[in-house]
Amino acid sequence: MAERIPTPTSPAPDIVRCAYLELVVTDLARSREFYVDLLGLVVTCESDTEIYLRTFDEFIHHNLVLRQGPVAAVAAFAYRVRSPEELDRAVDFYTELGCRVERRGEGFVRGVRDAVRVQDPIGFPIEYFYEVEHVERLAWAYHLHNPGALVRLDHFNQVTPDVPRAAAHMVDLGFRVTEDIEDGEGTVYAAWMRRKPTVHDTAMTGGDGPRMHHVAFATHEKHNIIAICDKMGALRISDRIERGPGRHGVSNAFYLYILDPDGHRVEIYTQDYWTGDPDNPLVTWDVHDNQRRDWWGNPVVPSWYTEASPVLDLDGTVVPLTTRTDDSEMSVTIGADGFSYTREGDVEKGFKLGNQL
Amino acid sequence: MAERIPTPTSPAPDIVRCAYLELVVTDLARSREFYVDLLGLVVTCESDTEIYLRTFDEFIHHNLVLRQGPVAAVAAFAYRVRSPEELDRAVDFYTELGCRVERRGEGFVRGVRDAVRVQDPIGFPIEYFYEVEHVERLAWAYHLHNPGALVRLDHFNQVTPDVPRAAAHMVDLGFRVTEDIEDGEGTVYAAWMRRKPTVHDTAMTGGDGPRMHHVAFATHEKHNIIAICDKMGALRISDRIERGPGRHGVSNAFYLYILDPDGHRVEIYTQDYWTGDPDNPLVTWDVHDNQRRDWWGNPVVPSWYTEASPVLDLDGTVVPLTTRTDDSEMSVTIGADGFSYTREGDVEKGFKLGNQL
Amino acid sequence: MAERIPTPTSPAPDIVRCAYLELVVTDLARSREFYVDLLGLVVTCESDTEIYLRTFDEFIHHNLVLRQGPVAAVAAFAYRVRSPEELDRAVDFYTELGCRVERRGEGFVRGVRDAVRVQDPIGFPIEYFYEVEHVERLAWAYHLHNPGALVRLDHFNQVTPDVPRAAAHMVDLGFRVTEDIEDGEGTVYAAWMRRKPTVHDTAMTGGDGPRMHHVAFATHEKHNIIAICDKMGALRISDRIERGPGRHGVSNAFYLYILDPDGHRVEIYTQDYWTGDPDNPLVTWDVHDNQRRDWWGNPVVPSWYTEASPVLDLDGTVVPLTTRTDDSEMSVTIGADGFSYTREGDVEKGFKLGNQL
Amino acid sequence: MAERIPTPTSPAPDIVRCAYLELVVTDLARSREFYVDLLGLVVTCESDTEIYLRTFDEFIHHNLVLRQGPVAAVAAFAYRVRSPEELDRAVDFYTELGCRVERRGEGFVRGVRDAVRVQDPIGFPIEYFYEVEHVERLAWAYHLHNPGALVRLDHFNQVTPDVPRAAAHMVDLGFRVTEDIEDGEGTVYAAWMRRKPTVHDTAMTGGDGPRMHHVAFATHEKHNIIAICDKMGALRISDRIERGPGRHGVSNAFYLYILDPDGHRVEIYTQDYWTGDPDNPLVTWDVHDNQRRDWWGNPVVPSWYTEASPVLDLDGTVVPLTTRTDDSEMSVTIGADGFSYTREGDVEKGFKLGNQL
Repeated sequence: MAERIPTPTSPAPDIVRCAYLELVVTDLARSREFYVDLLGLVVTCESDTEIYLRTFDEFIHHNLVLRQGPVAAVAAFAYRVRSPEELDRAVDFYTELGCRVERRGEGFVRGVRDAVRVQDPIGFPIEYFYEVEHVERLAWAYHLHNPGALVRLDHFNQVTPDVPRAAAHMVDLGFRVTEDIEDGEGTVYAAWMRRKPTVHDTAMTGGDGPRMHHVAFATHEKHNIIAICDKMGALRISDRIERGPGRHGVSNAFYLYILDPDGHRVEIYTQDYWTGDPDNPLVTWDVHDNQRRDWWGNPVVPSWYTEASPVLDLDGTVVPLTTRTDDSEMSVTIGADGFSYTREGDVEKGFKLGNQL
Repeated sequence: MAERIPTPTSPAPDIVRCAYLELVVTDLARSREFYVDLLGLVVTCESDTEIYLRTFDEFIHHNLVLRQGPVAAVAAFAYRVRSPEELDRAVDFYTELGCRVERRGEGFVRGVRDAVRVQDPIGFPIEYFYEVEHVERLAWAYHLHNPGALVRLDHFNQVTPDVPRAAAHMVDLGFRVTEDIEDGEGTVYAAWMRRKPTVHDTAMTGGDGPRMHHVAFATHEKHNIIAICDKMGALRISDRIERGPGRHGVSNAFYLYILDPDGHRVEIYTQDYWTGDPDNPLVTWDVHDNQRRDWWGNPVVPSWYTEASPVLDLDGTVVPLTTRTDDSEMSVTIGADGFSYTREGDVEKGFKLGNQL
Repeated sequence: MAERIPTPTSPAPDIVRCAYLELVVTDLARSREFYVDLLGLVVTCESDTEIYLRTFDEFIHHNLVLRQGPVAAVAAFAYRVRSPEELDRAVDFYTELGCRVERRGEGFVRGVRDAVRVQDPIGFPIEYFYEVEHVERLAWAYHLHNPGALVRLDHFNQVTPDVPRAAAHMVDLGFRVTEDIEDGEGTVYAAWMRRKPTVHDTAMTGGDGPRMHHVAFATHEKHNIIAICDKMGALRISDRIERGPGRHGVSNAFYLYILDPDGHRVEIYTQDYWTGDPDNPLVTWDVHDNQRRDWWGNPVVPSWYTEASPVLDLDGTVVPLTTRTDDSEMSVTIGADGFSYTREGDVEKGFKLGNQL
Repeated sequence: MAERIPTPTSPAPDIVRCAYLELVVTDLARSREFYVDLLGLVVTCESDTEIYLRTFDEFIHHNLVLRQGPVAAVAAFAYRVRSPEELDRAVDFYTELGCRVERRGEGFVRGVRDAVRVQDPIGFPIEYFYEVEHVERLAWAYHLHNPGALVRLDHFNQVTPDVPRAAAHMVDLGFRVTEDIEDGEGTVYAAWMRRKPTVHDTAMTGGDGPRMHHVAFATHEKHNIIAICDKMGALRISDRIERGPGRHGVSNAFYLYILDPDGHRVEIYTQDYWTGDPDNPLVTWDVHDNQRRDWWGNPVVPSWYTEASPVLDLDGTVVPLTTRTDDSEMSVTIGADGFSYTREGDVEKGFKLGNQL
């Protein structure tokens, strides 16, 4: 296991929330069909090479930037900070960690001005910004809403080989862990952490990394998520529904995972719980609890464990992967070597498909 | 393939709807937990050996009779007919077919009086009745409703080796076929048929039979079905969720399949469509269409194809099975020999779990 | 009170269901905004003077015909019959009653062929047809569905001065009464009656008539109805929401009443109950029960009682009104002379707005 | 207009969220029927004189204390602060304002320890606390959830004569204003303000005060709110539904107002929007906009404007009222002297019931 990432003496920037994702896609027109025609995200502006999209409740310029490029990858996980001054803190914090740091007064993308991008100690491209163009909040514009209306960017999910190491760094950055998945021997398989008072702004999922596991948008009700599934069936792209819909154990949210044309994974998510109290209780799940990932015990498809999106460094080059050396959640839970239970202590395997792989 | 069942010269009884199921269970107390505590069916009356249950919108005495017995099985699929005189027609119709027919003026179960039971030509125990005790329709009794409130008995589903033969007999009995699953070579894998103007009062599913595949209750909304899943998770019986929730291709309904303590399969079902016009168009699905059984392409678990409940003859003896000789839907669609497509003509297998068995 | 309408010796035509409404509108473009842009009805075909619309689950050519004309009115309430031969029965039935009857082999509107129109004994223009063009059933076409997707034509509602007289005639025509509103002195204020096994295909509402009270379309879930309200707010036409959304006492359905540009009233309706058994219990409501029209006791706006659409005779002339001489539901329930109770025997008036008019 | 309340030099306590309400009720058994049997709040503990209740997602001891007493009133609006040290700040802050301040190491109610109560400068009894007993978060305990499951305490709403004066004080206390209702002449009728990143932790509503307008609990979905209405109908207490359900203009939430046995008003609320960004845009509504209080233009019942609950001082004595001298929202919007529009500039009054009072 790698050494702990040092805690900087410089204070961390005060992060408000995950704010947008910059995503490189290889066929912008096909991606537009997915994010605009299928999911109904609102186009703030677009060009031949970029599309800026937002959710219905958003008042900042965008929650997602699609940029045409040669390799499907994540260019930036962007967080909004509480004031312009926090950018100085971000510079100092990461400089002290020896990370590459780049600040641009004019911003890295349209709509955002003064911004700092870093490649963080676990390899991810992170942006911090405060100054941003305001646009119309379309929460009341129901004549524009579709049956699966997406109303907020909810969270990111990152793949990293050493979850405790990554989580400790995120805590140094001011995040609080809300839930995690462990086993009895001390292996941590995943951890969820938040700035805003929901279950997460991002999560660390154990695996070869750095990669992006998914980006998640929130809807209001469960039927909104079902409407997206129904529409994907009608469009004969049900093979892009990877997992769900279902009820998470972790977070208690109702969820769906779908894949964009490049294989970037998108979660649609609704109804987790308030975590904003300082003593909010941590929820720890046993990795063998078959209801941890799906409260109804429905199987996690193997691709969900193995596939993820590359991330880019600040030069736009794909960051090479470090292999996870801890146990993998997939191998300890499904297949010949793994096991899961519905009731602790229960050894019966049952008929669930996950046991039959 | 067996010979066609003759069409009687006697007119068929005029059937209104599927009305109740008599089910033998091996542990009445555990079954009560499932049907009353979990699903919230209303107890009309009960004794040490029997429980009479109904749905919230029902005004006849019961939709389900649970009877303690040595072997878990179906004792009767009961249909309501339009008038007392239809019972005479039922007697003549089945007598002409050479079936065993038994009529009891006092009825076979509590709440029902004059009734006819037969073992039909495909081996199933069927009851016809008109006279029945009325009870309070609890549609307005919202103080009694639970989050997954079941409001109607919707349909039966029967397993039989030769679907066209069974379906032709049901058409003789006055049913109309609304949907079916076929392949290009003329094999029929399943057929749905109705008296009331929904997609079905019963369906014939190809397999070793006679057996009951499932009994289905209707709810009003999709969240009601999700509530049942969530509750099963909370009760740590998610391993009794067999398949779903999902959207059917066939019927367009939202569905869930769960298993009672004896393994009797129960479907929760909502929102199919009106089929009551005389020229209602038949919908035929290709057996290889991966959206036929789940519109989102989610895999059908093998047990769903292979497991079913025995049925009893009029003496209470389990009816022996006849093996299906036609292709099985499971073998032609999943595993090494089968295939399914999302888009007709598309040969890519994709990541769906069903392809990985 | 007028004499009872005689029962013809000719058998009544076998009616399957209410099938479509032909509606004269004074500004076709504005009506198109309402029915197509706002409500999302599907355009089967259209011209400069007519628009043919259907719901998502429909497979016959249309459920609503909008025809440009000088006076906003109903041109026909159209019912589908079970076979072509039923049209002969319709001719004989109404001819015996002395009604004007017109039969056209080519039909009265596009998509429908052989059809009979009559002005019935209570003054309404009624059409019967069997032959009709089939179109694609869009139940599975979720990519076309809107948040308030309308899936079926559910019922008509007619205003007539003498409800028992009209209801008796409808029973002669083969309808069954499912619910009604009465007082202790024998006055009947409204009655609901069905052919298909829902609460109604049409209702008779006491008032000066013949007029159309409303036409109702069904959605699947309550949130679909709320989505229509939200959209009307966003479009700043909330003043066209007349009443609701709410839960009916009568029918137990969830409802909304909105007004089209000509003031034709449209109901959006979901989740009544099965009525198809021959002994389905009649539900009688006390006119003073404040939950009969809205289960939550929310007030009925006076316009809902007083306003309705004229109907045309077979020459296209507005049918003159006959005044109701029985008590009006509005006057006996609200205002200085009326009263309503929440609990029978309770005399407290409470704070509800209906009491303050 | 009264003078502005001075801004203390002492820093305000860092408030996390509105946490619980202590409510005096005159008949504890009847209140239990309302809050426990009807609404399904979870009983943490209870005695002959007190009931401690919480919502399903809560992990602190309670969100509502019902205490038997002689006069129906609010005894405390309680906020949770970020650390024990904030209590010292609360003492200093209010002491500097000349308010009565009382601190009890053992707390004022069960489950809470060290707490500060004050009578704030606008007359309300406010509590601050950090130390509190943790209880089981029942978010996953779906077997306990009812169809109208309440998952969070969302906000308070207070009546005060001078809204800008009260709002300025709340801003001094660290709140941010998210929305308000004004007219063109500078009168402010109501203001919403938050600590947690929802539309509000409390609102100030113009009227004779100090009084409590309502306390609001959150549900997940709109159907949960409808289920509460349906149940109140079934229990024949629909006369305790005061207003709604409906969609708010302000907050964009779906809402319902009901009255407990003492007339304390409870709102059920779902789906407002994220307000946690430091530059979250203020939304100002015109008092004459008929969609401000109900997005569908449904009328606000007069009692909603005029009735509210008394509040107690720290000795348990009802605080006398100060009369509002600014215009009242009711008088400027409904009745002979008021007006509301659906579309700005539109003078037509329409048929809406609110115009007919």
